[in-house]
Amino acid sequence: MEKANFSSFFEPKSVAVVGASEKPGKIGTAIAENVLKLGFAGEIFLVNPSYTELFKQKCYQNLDEIESQVDLAVVVVPAKFVLDVVKNSAKVKNFVIISAGFAETGKEGAQLEKELADLAREKGLNILGPNCLGFLNPSLKLNASFAVGMPEDGSIALGSQSGALLVAILDVAKKENLSFSLLVSLGNKMQLSETEILEQLEKDQKTKVIGMYLEGIKNGAQFIETAERVARQKPIVILKAGKTAKAQQAISSHTGALAGSDEIVEAVFEKVGVVRTETLEDFLQTLKIFSAAREFSNEKVAVITNAGGGGVLATDAFKGKTIQLADFSDEFKFQLQKELPAEGSVNNPIDILGDADEKRYAWALENLEKEELGAIIAILTPQEKTPVGAVADLLIDFKKRSSKNVAAAFVGGQLVEEARAKMQKNGILVFDFPEKAVEILNRFYVWQQRKNLTIENGESLAESQTENQKMAGEILEKAQKSGRKALDFLEAAKVMELYGIKTVQSFHLSGTDQIPQEIEYPVVAKIDSDQVLHKTDQKALVLNIKNADELKAALADFQTRFNGEKVLVQSMLSRGMELILGINRDPIFGPIVVAGLGGIYTEVFKMVDFFVAPLNLVEIEEKLKKGKTSFLFRQTRGQKEFDVKELALIIQGLMNMAQDLPQIAELDINPLFVYNDGQAAVAVDVKIIF
Amino acid sequence: MEKANFSSFFEPKSVAVVGASEKPGKIGTAIAENVLKLGFAGEIFLVNPSYTELFKQKCYQNLDEIESQVDLAVVVVPAKFVLDVVKNSAKVKNFVIISAGFAETGKEGAQLEKELADLAREKGLNILGPNCLGFLNPSLKLNASFAVGMPEDGSIALGSQSGALLVAILDVAKKENLSFSLLVSLGNKMQLSETEILEQLEKDQKTKVIGMYLEGIKNGAQFIETAERVARQKPIVILKAGKTAKAQQAISSHTGALAGSDEIVEAVFEKVGVVRTETLEDFLQTLKIFSAAREFSNEKVAVITNAGGGGVLATDAFKGKTIQLADFSDEFKFQLQKELPAEGSVNNPIDILGDADEKRYAWALENLEKEELGAIIAILTPQEKTPVGAVADLLIDFKKRSSKNVAAAFVGGQLVEEARAKMQKNGILVFDFPEKAVEILNRFYVWQQRKNLTIENGESLAESQTENQKMAGEILEKAQKSGRKALDFLEAAKVMELYGIKTVQSFHLSGTDQIPQEIEYPVVAKIDSDQVLHKTDQKALVLNIKNADELKAALADFQTRFNGEKVLVQSMLSRGMELILGINRDPIFGPIVVAGLGGIYTEVFKMVDFFVAPLNLVEIEEKLKKGKTSFLFRQTRGQKEFDVKELALIIQGLMNMAQDLPQIAELDINPLFVYNDGQAAVAVDVKIIF
Repeated sequence: MEKANFSSFFEPKSVAVVGASEKPGKIGTAIAENVLKLGFAGEIFLVNPSYTELFKQKCYQNLDEIESQVDLAVVVVPAKFVLDVVKNSAKVKNFVIISAGFAETGKEGAQLEKELADLAREKGLNILGPNCLGFLNPSLKLNASFAVGMPEDGSIALGSQSGALLVAILDVAKKENLSFSLLVSLGNKMQLSETEILEQLEKDQKTKVIGMYLEGIKNGAQFIETAERVARQKPIVILKAGKTAKAQQAISSHTGALAGSDEIVEAVFEKVGVVRTETLEDFLQTLKIFSAAREFSNEKVAVITNAGGGGVLATDAFKGKTIQLADFSDEFKFQLQKELPAEGSVNNPIDILGDADEKRYAWALENLEKEELGAIIAILTPQEKTPVGAVADLLIDFKKRSSKNVAAAFVGGQLVEEARAKMQKNGILVFDFPEKAVEILNRFYVWQQRKNLTIENGESLAESQTENQKMAGEILEKAQKSGRKALDFLEAAKVMELYGIKTVQSFHLSGTDQIPQEIEYPVVAKIDSDQVLHKTDQKALVLNIKNADELKAALADFQTRFNGEKVLVQSMLSRGMELILGINRDPIFGPIVVAGLGGIYTEVFKMVDFFVAPLNLVEIEEKLKKGKTSFLFRQTRGQKEFDVKELALIIQGLMNMAQDLPQIAELDINPLFVYNDGQAAVAVDVKIIF
Repeated sequence: MEKANFSSFFEPKSVAVVGASEKPGKIGTAIAENVLKLGFAGEIFLVNPSYTELFKQKCYQNLDEIESQVDLAVVVVPAKFVLDVVKNSAKVKNFVIISAGFAETGKEGAQLEKELADLAREKGLNILGPNCLGFLNPSLKLNASFAVGMPEDGSIALGSQSGALLVAILDVAKKENLSFSLLVSLGNKMQLSETEILEQLEKDQKTKVIGMYLEGIKNGAQFIETAERVARQKPIVILKAGKTAKAQQAISSHTGALAGSDEIVEAVFEKVGVVRTETLEDFLQTLKIFSAAREFSNEKVAVITNAGGGGVLATDAFKGKTIQLADFSDEFKFQLQKELPAEGSVNNPIDILGDADEKRYAWALENLEKEELGAIIAILTPQEKTPVGAVADLLIDFKKRSSKNVAAAFVGGQLVEEARAKMQKNGILVFDFPEKAVEILNRFYVWQQRKNLTIENGESLAESQTENQKMAGEILEKAQKSGRKALDFLEAAKVMELYGIKTVQSFHLSGTDQIPQEIEYPVVAKIDSDQVLHKTDQKALVLNIKNADELKAALADFQTRFNGEKVLVQSMLSRGMELILGINRDPIFGPIVVAGLGGIYTEVFKMVDFFVAPLNLVEIEEKLKKGKTSFLFRQTRGQKEFDVKELALIIQGLMNMAQDLPQIAELDINPLFVYNDGQAAVAVDVKIIF
């Protein structure tokens, strides 16, 4: 199959509308009018076998009848005719299928969609949709959709899995002065999904920020690879909906219960550097600001305000943020003090008082320009004498000369609206409220830091260790053949060993067995069966057995109550910090390693992190140090730090295992004891389900 | 002193402006014009010794010259003349002091303010300010401030500790169609503070919701009492700023470090039922919705949408909320299915599809009205054929007949603006985005639930136990007189005992003492000194001493290293769940009892709750069951629940102690061992600092 040639897709020189019409109220009419009447300078062909002329120009019977090159066909015929249209066009490679009636409608539609996908693969076509709104490319004045109007040409690229939201966003955009490089309705994502769009936008010079409304992600591995690369060049902001919608699969393991699908999406976004927003409002505001923000030279921010209260609110908003209120130089404070009335404040936020005019703002800004700052936020409330427009003009002018980010939070309604719009059009970062300014500037700075992180040069995932993989595979196969669904402990311990993870020394005994001499007491005895998953609850566990007699008694009791199930006898370890680790397989993103705090309150504390492949050893270590259990790897009052490298190696072992042994459905180590006195970490119990 | 007569304060029949002027740009001019020209129907007197006539009416030399009754005087003379104006007016009882130059400017101003406060007390005056903007009462068309304009008459009462924010809010209000019963600038809160305003608004029929922007709270105990009472009648919404501003006092105790001033504000607001908002935007939106919301009949909510994406976003927003998406009756679904196209959804959210007209909305609403619901949210995006205005009219009409809350989230810009404004004016709960609708409706429902909670009839705080209080006081006094700053363990244990809290059995020994026979081994030996607060770090603690010989050796070592400090020898307890408890004294709110999870990770987990007096035993228990450590009081996998009543008694003991013994500055129990096997809880270490 030919690789998609996207530039002729989203930047076509000629467009055909198949199913064009003139009848009012028809989608074919809306699209034809949009393509014809909004300024697109390329060639336009209308196709509909029922007409010879439409909009006073020739109407073609079919695509093949067109003699010139057609870069893009927009198809709005009923679903049942779509396949024929695509099949019978020899020359066109790029299609937007607007038509609904495919996978979204049930089984028959899904079959139709499959046939369309097969056709596309065979013929090397690019297809957007079906069941989509189309797309808009404002720089070409091309509206190849049935959404109304033409948004401003700008630097935000937007993909949406909901056509209706795209329409609403277009309307919000007008009010908020958002401008776009591309708007794409993703529809059913049969072929072109978020990943292909990201790939296209990676090279697009006009696009400064990419926003996506997604309800699902189509190809996990491909998305991870692409998004990770693109996010190092421009911000990807995603509003990922459907947190609660997706039914959880039945899950029997501990770690499984900790990994909801949304937690995994969260982990993936964090891994690849996607900026996630929680609400539509926040999504749009983030896109607006990210499209206009400059790189911060450092994390320091200055706030100027003509309202004390606004300054206090901004200060509060810095709590817990990465960007910080700057401390000013003495020279700066001295300069400021000379001109500011006594009641003002020369600390940050700088309170230039309620009667401040544009000169007081100007003079604070000029002095600030000499300070080491990443951004300046100017807060304004429209008080009796406040020259709102003049302050706005001043900021616009200042921004042209400044190397810093210039943000404005003009709080009010009618009195500030015009100023806000003008500033927005002139590249000022405009907010309605001071807290929002701090929040979104911080979001941008965190993204920037992330982008500029050098990629860690750690040992990459070990090449699959063929021999070990083979041996582990055999253990699994043998157990599978015996009709079991899980390994017993000794089998699991062997698999662990093959991947470098130490387990506690153990024996399998039954009530009638001779007690081995070499046992080191005290020991623990427990039923080792995949029928008995929660041992404490079922009294299938005896702790602190001090000698052979006690052990005999325990084995006899188990014999009676558990009907000959195998008993595992293990030396009791000195109690380490209890961790829980495991492998889960996500239907979209594949194997996920889960690691966190164990113990009876695991579910209460939920201090677990999710490790999404691929990660090298250094990356795993970094993630542990920043993660939910980071406190374990620092010295705490009265406790030495635990060895992060040792844990990273174990996690790497699990990642290798997940990759090598796809037959493992779930794996649980619970607990893993880790120590901070030089003892090696030990897996006390391991459950492997296949 | 006479009790303030507020109704003549905020609803005066006659107003005098002292310092009135005609000169453009003066505050005295702005206020005079506001009072004269915006429709106030009462008598108006202008006072200024420099004029005989102003605005073509008589100007008085001073207040006493006015022969009629003056209900309210608004004073805008320079600070130095304010005292004379107030002193020399025999008849006026109510003053708004606009003038700045008081406590906010430093020492001299603070002295002037003190004199003004004394005068007010002597003469039984009510004074708002100084250093404030004044107030506005829209129902009287009285603008007794220098803010511009007259807001709509409505049901939101607003108090603000920042005048500039009040001005900005007035401007936002116009745009957002907010309407007010009262707007008050609180200024320096010399006399009338948030508490007095709350008292006034409690009885005010027009006020449905009270909003306050506060940077501090003046009188903690009085605020708690008043707010708790008022919040049972109408919602109090507070934007409390200054989270990070207040410097923490130097704190030596564990629990002290856990109780930042903002955590305590949070605990107080939760206790009294104040709705706290985190940002100005959220504050205003909450006031808008709370002023129009009706009581929910239950927590079930239905969502109708013409955009699938909007429905998904709303669904996500319900995650973790108290309000819930309703399950519909089969009858309802059957009815719905009859009319909705196949692609629509009859589940909640109801997707009536992108081509929905007002009839489809109408018909979904009529069917919903028969369901048991607290609220209906109608989401609309302005798609090609969407009749935005007709849907708005429909909702307005439906709301008149419905008993439910009717909310609208019309997502868009220009295409929906007019509809939003119209709906807002007609009592629909209007939101810009679906997630916000869910969030703020949930906030209202949670407030409503809280309001309707029956007050728990628990044993109230025990009368101070005179005898015990006396004995404990003597122990403290004796230690104080010996120049110490903390009790030693045995003294502290005695105080604990007097308040019903058990401590571990202990002995004080030194290197030369005879070892008592009755000691039960193993024991722990530790230095007992207020010089050695972190015993583990300083190796001032030996664990697991098994016999008299080992104990002797440990005592000898301490003798050498700690130079004769007292050594405490205690039997080692079986290890219980470690809790940490303590008393802190907040400068505003008084004694706070802190209780939470102990152990080396106390600061990491921060699972602590704050108990603000007064609370009875039942309330303490309820708070524990809902608090951060609630998981201890439920059965968990493999662990029985701990006794919540026992812990509640200990907390009550600490609250009594805090009340009885004000000389205790801080108290720390760390750890308290609690058990779930019938053993009584034991305080292992207690530190009492005075």
